[in-house]
Amino acid sequence: MYLGSWLNRLGRGLSRPIGKTKQPIWGSLSRSLTLSSQRVPEFSSFVARTNTCGELRSSHLGQEVTLCGWIQYRRQNTFLVLRDCHGLVQILIPQDESAASVRRTLCEAPVESVVRVSGTVIARPLGQENPKMPTGEIEIKAKTAELLNACKKLPFEIKDFVKKTEALRLQYRYLDLRSSQMQHNLRLRSQMVMKMREYLCTLHGFVDIETPTLFKRTPGIDIEMSFVDQTGIQHLVEGLLHYSWPEDKDPLVAPFPSMTFAEALATYGTDKPDTRFGMKIVDISDVFRNTEIRFLQDALAKPQGTVKAICVHEGAKYLRKEDIEFIRKFAAHHFSQEVLPIFLNARKNWSSPFAKFITEEERLELTRLMEIQEDDMVLLTAGQHEKACSLLGKLRLECADLLETRGLALRDPALFSFLWVLDFPLFLAKEESPTELESAHHPFTAPHPGDIHLLYTEPEKVRGQHYDLVLNGNEIGGGSIRIHDAQLQRYILETLLKEDVKLLSHLLQALDYGAPPHGGIALGLDRLVCLVTGAPSIRDVIAFPKSYRGHDLMSNAPDTVSPEDLKPYHIHVSWPTDSEERASATPSKYLSS
Amino acid sequence: MYLGSWLNRLGRGLSRPIGKTKQPIWGSLSRSLTLSSQRVPEFSSFVARTNTCGELRSSHLGQEVTLCGWIQYRRQNTFLVLRDCHGLVQILIPQDESAASVRRTLCEAPVESVVRVSGTVIARPLGQENPKMPTGEIEIKAKTAELLNACKKLPFEIKDFVKKTEALRLQYRYLDLRSSQMQHNLRLRSQMVMKMREYLCTLHGFVDIETPTLFKRTPGIDIEMSFVDQTGIQHLVEGLLHYSWPEDKDPLVAPFPSMTFAEALATYGTDKPDTRFGMKIVDISDVFRNTEIRFLQDALAKPQGTVKAICVHEGAKYLRKEDIEFIRKFAAHHFSQEVLPIFLNARKNWSSPFAKFITEEERLELTRLMEIQEDDMVLLTAGQHEKACSLLGKLRLECADLLETRGLALRDPALFSFLWVLDFPLFLAKEESPTELESAHHPFTAPHPGDIHLLYTEPEKVRGQHYDLVLNGNEIGGGSIRIHDAQLQRYILETLLKEDVKLLSHLLQALDYGAPPHGGIALGLDRLVCLVTGAPSIRDVIAFPKSYRGHDLMSNAPDTVSPEDLKPYHIHVSWPTDSEERASATPSKYLSS
Repeated sequence: MYLGSWLNRLGRGLSRPIGKTKQPIWGSLSRSLTLSSQRVPEFSSFVARTNTCGELRSSHLGQEVTLCGWIQYRRQNTFLVLRDCHGLVQILIPQDESAASVRRTLCEAPVESVVRVSGTVIARPLGQENPKMPTGEIEIKAKTAELLNACKKLPFEIKDFVKKTEALRLQYRYLDLRSSQMQHNLRLRSQMVMKMREYLCTLHGFVDIETPTLFKRTPGIDIEMSFVDQTGIQHLVEGLLHYSWPEDKDPLVAPFPSMTFAEALATYGTDKPDTRFGMKIVDISDVFRNTEIRFLQDALAKPQGTVKAICVHEGAKYLRKEDIEFIRKFAAHHFSQEVLPIFLNARKNWSSPFAKFITEEERLELTRLMEIQEDDMVLLTAGQHEKACSLLGKLRLECADLLETRGLALRDPALFSFLWVLDFPLFLAKEESPTELESAHHPFTAPHPGDIHLLYTEPEKVRGQHYDLVLNGNEIGGGSIRIHDAQLQRYILETLLKEDVKLLSHLLQALDYGAPPHGGIALGLDRLVCLVTGAPSIRDVIAFPKSYRGHDLMSNAPDTVSPEDLKPYHIHVSWPTDSEERASATPSKYLSS
Repeated sequence: MYLGSWLNRLGRGLSRPIGKTKQPIWGSLSRSLTLSSQRVPEFSSFVARTNTCGELRSSHLGQEVTLCGWIQYRRQNTFLVLRDCHGLVQILIPQDESAASVRRTLCEAPVESVVRVSGTVIARPLGQENPKMPTGEIEIKAKTAELLNACKKLPFEIKDFVKKTEALRLQYRYLDLRSSQMQHNLRLRSQMVMKMREYLCTLHGFVDIETPTLFKRTPGIDIEMSFVDQTGIQHLVEGLLHYSWPEDKDPLVAPFPSMTFAEALATYGTDKPDTRFGMKIVDISDVFRNTEIRFLQDALAKPQGTVKAICVHEGAKYLRKEDIEFIRKFAAHHFSQEVLPIFLNARKNWSSPFAKFITEEERLELTRLMEIQEDDMVLLTAGQHEKACSLLGKLRLECADLLETRGLALRDPALFSFLWVLDFPLFLAKEESPTELESAHHPFTAPHPGDIHLLYTEPEKVRGQHYDLVLNGNEIGGGSIRIHDAQLQRYILETLLKEDVKLLSHLLQALDYGAPPHGGIALGLDRLVCLVTGAPSIRDVIAFPKSYRGHDLMSNAPDTVSPEDLKPYHIHVSWPTDSEERASATPSKYLSS
C-alpha cells in the first residue's frame, strides 16, 4: 500500500557520494564481523555501544564503556539501574558541578526512558556488592549521558511483582514483553525451537519445507518421515525432546513409558493421564456382586455395568464436609452420577452413609484391592464403564487440587512425566446417528496392522496407528502413520466414512503414484513451553497472542477493511449486531491456543 | 473437522497390552537413539531398513543390507537402480530358479514403485564400476524383495532431462519433487535457512519470534534490532550471507560495495543494477552543446534536458540490423524516445544516419568519454534525466541478452555480485496529484539524519534510511531504520502524508513509551536461493508454490467453501463470471513471488 513504483518515477532523491570513516566497536555483532569501510559520517553515532548492560563483570574494571538501555529505576538521584535485554547494571550518577548536565539528563528522564551512557567500570565500595545481580560487583561511573527516547507515564510498572490484568498486559504487550518473565519465556522458547531444528535438520538430515498456507480443507501436517512406523516416530520425538530440553532441568530419560488408550481410560479416566501421582481407578465390581446396596445392584444388573472407585490417601484427614458436598454435586451435575464416599478414620472405623450395608467380607476385600489405609477416603461410583471412568478421572484431579489447597503436595512441579498413549480407536460412532462412523482423528490414519481384517467385519473395533504424547496430564503432541495404499484409503473414505472422494482425488492419485509408507507427528510447542516454564497460560509463552475471541488488543485488530479492498477477493463482510455477537461468544475458544 | 471429542465418548476402541520384541537397526535415526523396549510385534516390519541407498560404498562389501526406495529404472530384467532421498544404488536381480519370486517382484513392479530389498553388498565386476555414481563400485545381490506400493502409469518420467510443462509439474508436484534437481534445490534452501538461523539465534543471540498473522493493515516486519543503524544492519546481513553461503561456492567477501540510489540511476538506469558487467550510462550532454542535430538541440534546450549514451563493446560486430530495429522500436514503444545508434567499423569509420552531422571535435570527445573502440556500437538518446537513464538501463540489459544469444559471454553465472543501494528518497510525489507526497517505501522509515531539517522546508528532497540489497540485478532484500520518535512519526503521518493517525494510534503510543532506536531488514529467500541454485523460476525453489493467479494446481485450491462454513466469519463470497475473471487477470502476479 505504501510501496512506490520506481521505473517511471526515478531519482527524485538528492544524494551525494558517501564518505569513509572508522567506527567504534559494536555490540556482540561487530566482534565477529569485518567493519565496513563505507558509512555516512553523521549517521546515528548514538547507536554505537561498546558493551551490553548484562555482560559487565569485575574483569572489565577500569574500562571505558558505552551502554544503551532502559532506566529500570533510580535511587536518591545517585544510583540508576540500566536495563537491556542482556541484563541490568548500576550507573553511578556524578554529583560534582562539572557534570551538572549529565546529572540532569539522568535524573530528569522518566523511568523506562531510553538512554545512552558512557563511563568507567569501577568496583562497588566494599559491602555494597550485590551477589543477587550478575553485574553486582561493579558499577559505571557516568561521564556522558544522552536521552534517546523519553518515556511517557506508563499504564503499569515493568516489575514482575506488580500485578496487572491480562487484558492490560495484552493491550500494552510491547511493555509487558520488557518484563524479565516474558523475556525468559520467549528466549527459552526460541532456544528450544532452535535446538529442535538443529536436531532435525543438522543431525538427522530433515528438510525444512514451508507448507502451503492457502490449501484445500484437509488436516494440516509438522514432522513427516518416509519408511517409518509408530516406534520410529516415538524414537525421533524422544530424541528431539531429550536434545532440546533446557540444560537447567534434569535430562529426560528415553524411552518414555507408553500406555494404550483403553488402559489410560480404565486407570485414569482420560486419554491424557497425569502420571505424576497415583489415586488410580480400580474396578471393584466383583466385590459387590451380592451387595444389598440398591444403586450398586441396579448398576451391575445393566450390561457393561460396573462399580469403580479411587482411594484418596489421607482424604479422611484433609478433606472437609463441604469438599465432599462439592464432589457429589459435581458428579450429579456433570455426569448425573451418584458418588459414594467412604472414610476410614484413625480407629479403622468406616464412616459412610452406606457403611452399615457393607459386609465385613466386602470391607476386607475392598481394603485389600484398594490398599486402603488409616485416614484414607474412598470415592465409589457405579455405572457404565466409560462414564464411571471419566467421572472418577475428573474427581481424581479435583481431589488432587483440593488436597493441594490443604497443603498436601501431590504433583511435583519439577517433575516432567511424559507418556505415550497408543492404540486409539480408528473410528467413532457419530453422536447424532450412532450407526454411522466418523474418524476419531482424521481419515488418513492407518489402521493397526493387526486389525485390518476387522475393517470389513467390525470396523468400530479397529485400532488406529495414532499416538498422542502426554506431559503431566496435557496433550503436547499427536500424530499418526498415514495410509499409503490408495485402495485402502478409498475404501475407508467411501465405504466406511461416506466421504465425497472427489474432494480428495489429488490425494488418492498421489498414493497411486508410488507414495512410500509414511507418518508424522505435530508437537504443541505453545503448551510444551508453557509446561516447561511453568507459565500460567500459553499466552505467556507467545509474543503476540490473540485474546479471548481472537482479538488483538494491542492493534485492536481485527478491524474493518474497506469494501474496495475486499473486492479483488470477491468477499463481502456483514458484521453481526452486538446481540448476535453475544449469542455466538464461546469463551473457551482462543486463536492462540 | 475430523477430531472426535473424547470425554463423553471414551473407550470405544478394543485394545490389549502391547508385547515386547527387539528390533532391527534403523536408518540414520536409530543410531543416535536408545530403542524402545515396547512395540507391537506385527507392526510394519517393512519399514525396517539397515541402510540408505546413497550411503553404500566398498567399505560395506559383504554386509547384509535392507534398503527401501523407488525403482528408478531396470535393465534387461537383470539390473535395477533403487533410489531414496540419499541417492542411487544398483540391485542385481537373481536369475536362478530358487529366487523366482524375488525376480518376479523386482521385474514386474512398474518403475517408481516402492520396494524393500534385502541382499548382500558385492563388488561390481571389473570394468563395470561407474565412477559417475557415488555407489558405483558396488551393487546389491538381492535375496528378498517386497513390493510396498505399486506405481500406476505416470503422467511424466522422473528424469531431469525429460521436459515437462510447468503446469504439469505443478499439478503432480509430489512427483516433480522426486527429481534430483528439486531435491537439490529444496535441500540447499533448507540448509541455507538453517545456517541463517544458527547465525542469528545461536551465534548472535537473536530471539526467534512468531509474529501475528492476523494483524492490522501495517507493513510486515524479518530481522529486527534495537540500538542499531544502517551500517549495523549491513554488517549483520553481510555476516549472515557469508555464514550461510553454500560451501561449494567461492566464499563471499564482505563488506559488499554500496551505491546511492541516485548513482545507481545515473550509471545503470535502475535501482537494482546488475554490476557483473559494464556498459555504463555516460552523460554526454556537454559534447553536444553546439550540435546541429535537431532532436539533441531540442532536448538540451529543455530544463533537465540531457544527452546520454551506452557503449556496447563489439556491438558493431555482433548486433544485426534487426536487433537495432528492435531496440529502436522498444525505445519508441515503451519510452516514446528516439535512440540513435552509432557504429564504429573496423576501419574506425563511423556509420550512423547522423554521422555526417557529428563534428570531428564531437567525435574525438565522444570516443574519449566513452572509451569507444573498434567494432563498438554506441546507443545515444536525449531527454529528461530519469527517463533517459531508465531507457538506457533497459537497453543495457536488452543488449546484454542479444550479445549472449550471439555467443558473447557478458554475465558470469558463477559470479555473485552483491550491492547495497542506499539513500533512497523518503517521499515521492503522488502520480495522480503531484503536489501531494506518499512514502517511497513505508511511512515508518526514518529520515536521513543529515536531511531532517529539510522535512520542514523541502520534504521531497529528504533521503530515507532505507537500504536495498541487490544481487546480480535482483533485489533480494530491503529494510530501513524506523522512526522511534513519536512526535516525528506523527508529523510525517499527519502533516506530510495526510494519513489518518487514528489507525496507527497503538504504534504512536508504543513509541511514546520508550521505544528504542531500531531497524530491520527482510531478505527475499525465494529469490536468493533461486539465484544461488541458478533455477529458472522461484517456483523451482519452493516445495508447493502457487501457480499463475495463485491457484494450487495439485489440490485445485482455492476451492469453494460452503456458506455455512463462512457464516461464523460473517463473510459472503460472490464468484465473478469468467469474463470478469479474464478482465481482472494480471499475469505478472504470483502468490509465490
